[in-house]
Amino acid sequence: MNAEVKEVMAHVSGERLWERLMRLAEIGATPKGGVNRQAFTPEDAEARVLVAEWARELGFSVYQDDIGNLFLRRPGQDASRLPIVTGSHLDSQPTGGRFDGVLGVLVALEAIQAINEAGLDTLHPLEVVAWMNEEGSRYGPVCMGSSVYVGRMQLDEACRTVSTDGASLADELPHALAAVGDAGKREFGAPMAAYVETHIEQGPVLEEEGIQLGVVSGIQGIRWFQCEVTGSAAHAGTTPRRMRRDAGRAAMRMITALDDEFTDAEDSIRFTVGRFSVEPGSPNVVPDRVTFSIDLRHPDTATLDVLTDRIKVVCDELSGPCQVNVEQTGGVAPAAMAPWITDILAGVASDLGIFHKHIPSGAVHDASNMVAVCPVAMLFIPSHEGISHNEAESSEPEDCRAAAEVLASSLVRIDRQLGE
Amino acid sequence: MNAEVKEVMAHVSGERLWERLMRLAEIGATPKGGVNRQAFTPEDAEARVLVAEWARELGFSVYQDDIGNLFLRRPGQDASRLPIVTGSHLDSQPTGGRFDGVLGVLVALEAIQAINEAGLDTLHPLEVVAWMNEEGSRYGPVCMGSSVYVGRMQLDEACRTVSTDGASLADELPHALAAVGDAGKREFGAPMAAYVETHIEQGPVLEEEGIQLGVVSGIQGIRWFQCEVTGSAAHAGTTPRRMRRDAGRAAMRMITALDDEFTDAEDSIRFTVGRFSVEPGSPNVVPDRVTFSIDLRHPDTATLDVLTDRIKVVCDELSGPCQVNVEQTGGVAPAAMAPWITDILAGVASDLGIFHKHIPSGAVHDASNMVAVCPVAMLFIPSHEGISHNEAESSEPEDCRAAAEVLASSLVRIDRQLGE
Repeated sequence: MNAEVKEVMAHVSGERLWERLMRLAEIGATPKGGVNRQAFTPEDAEARVLVAEWARELGFSVYQDDIGNLFLRRPGQDASRLPIVTGSHLDSQPTGGRFDGVLGVLVALEAIQAINEAGLDTLHPLEVVAWMNEEGSRYGPVCMGSSVYVGRMQLDEACRTVSTDGASLADELPHALAAVGDAGKREFGAPMAAYVETHIEQGPVLEEEGIQLGVVSGIQGIRWFQCEVTGSAAHAGTTPRRMRRDAGRAAMRMITALDDEFTDAEDSIRFTVGRFSVEPGSPNVVPDRVTFSIDLRHPDTATLDVLTDRIKVVCDELSGPCQVNVEQTGGVAPAAMAPWITDILAGVASDLGIFHKHIPSGAVHDASNMVAVCPVAMLFIPSHEGISHNEAESSEPEDCRAAAEVLASSLVRIDRQLGE
Repeated sequence: MNAEVKEVMAHVSGERLWERLMRLAEIGATPKGGVNRQAFTPEDAEARVLVAEWARELGFSVYQDDIGNLFLRRPGQDASRLPIVTGSHLDSQPTGGRFDGVLGVLVALEAIQAINEAGLDTLHPLEVVAWMNEEGSRYGPVCMGSSVYVGRMQLDEACRTVSTDGASLADELPHALAAVGDAGKREFGAPMAAYVETHIEQGPVLEEEGIQLGVVSGIQGIRWFQCEVTGSAAHAGTTPRRMRRDAGRAAMRMITALDDEFTDAEDSIRFTVGRFSVEPGSPNVVPDRVTFSIDLRHPDTATLDVLTDRIKVVCDELSGPCQVNVEQTGGVAPAAMAPWITDILAGVASDLGIFHKHIPSGAVHDASNMVAVCPVAMLFIPSHEGISHNEAESSEPEDCRAAAEVLASSLVRIDRQLGE
């Protein structure tokens, strides 16, 4: 670790970071210790104003685009350089926790503040971003702000959405934008040099393995399937097995066989049947129709293609006397992380003696969109018991600090490496 | 075939039997060609009065017990002998068919009428019985009349039941009894020499195998189980397989393993999972709770005991990281057929060149109760496509006639064999 990085480390404050986390947790606080700070609400605006205020106190400039994504900029030495951007989101689920999203914004602010206070110049501007409406709980879809930023969704399409409580985004958006006064204008799709997002894991792996930091190896792609198995209803007493066309029996054999086949040594395939519905659903009638869902995730598109084929083949093979129809109803492509940035993150963690591992992201994040714009990486910290989207969501102060330390040092290295 | 049996055969009339079946089908006829003649309704009374009238025209005596079971008696030569009884029921499901129950009563009447017209004396009285309320569709339980007759249910208990349309059996029963005027009194539990019931199969086996007559080998016992598997809800994307406690996965493995294990060469085990419910039932959440039903049937109690043990053992073995609870919620004991009577039925069918086979009864019948009183046997005729409890229920005239021929000749042989 060289002298300038040591200086940056000395200025990372776990206490300040934790205080800001707890301060933001007051905005939309719920009685059970969680947060209700859904996008485009007054609470969401209050949080965005507060974070912009903290940035201004540090001398950072505040920018905003037309969907309300917020950018807090510390200038670099070379005005022609693209910004290195880091952040996440400030909005929450209606019964959300205190860490999902806000952690990434405040870790970013802490890291850039530490660099600033260390008096360290960077070639590139450094920016904190707070993406608008990542949760998609009032206005869908999820990751709306980053989707509009990268052009995967158009602004007018977003404005046509109506909230679950009947409000129109076209009506609410101007208030959200006006809340952050004096912000400079940021154009959609403005290029970036790199993007790093810190987030809680939202899964149980890091905590269970006693690991403080996850360097995300890739964001899993998702494929959703709807399967329908059709047989014949028959009397449970009078119909022998050889004459049955039992849709339940066939469907369970398909799922069990796929579950066996998808048990990989690396445990990287996520195969979930969360919905399974049997008709007519009477104890003494052989089922004539079963519908079930498959949620399939893997970080690699080629593997997802192979698994998709196997789902169709295995369902056909095990349909027996029934008919089966497998339909892919949707999906999200995997998002690859930039190896040179994950190398920096892992290298810094090693240098700092922080126990870390490479881990795939099972959930979708704003980082999933940013791969369309620039090299991307992500850091995870442990989620207590893997609980997320829940008021009981919890993480440890020392893990938050570790993420800020790794991010601060990594931003400097990213700046140096891009400058070479 | 001896001369007297030939004479009886000559008097069995398939046309008369079919005409009576169609005549009864008019009482409570539905627009879709079925029958709504539920127990204790005016339609039910009309059917009982008509059948009693036919019996009186033949010189048979009419008896009734206090629940409305109807007995039509042709006297025997020896007044001290117990009656040989044959019949079934006249009531139907609300959207029932034209053959379920009524077939057994009218085949019995046809057989005894043929014996009568052949001028053949029997040692034992021969009786047609029409059991009250076999379907249990308005007033539960099923087989109410025969249950009260054999003492498995008390009359006052039956009288306390209330129909699905709010009527009280205590109020309706006197009208049902009064409808059949001039009937002699029959005591509950009055002993019988033998009981033979003819019924439609209500399953697809005979038709599919091109067999005209089933000699029932036994009435399956039933055991009902309610199983509950408990795991933990978890995020489909962020929770690796090794950390899941997937209640759906565990339940499907239990059921598939039991299904494999219960695949017997004779195809005599009936194992049905008709209800399977998954919670929380969201495509991207690993299920934390599954409840499912098991309907298990087999003609042999010892086998049912073994299978019951295996259900518990296999569910425990395959529960993995989940908990499982298996509870037996009910059951019906198997009813054994008297081998000497099934031998007579099969022997007569062979003599008459009627293609027949031994077949278990998957459904419960009044015969299930009669094993408490006397030796019992049953005959089945094919059900078109196995359809029953449905207005589309259908059987062929020649199969009905074959059953009447076999029954008539068998009644004579039963009488002779009991007289030896």
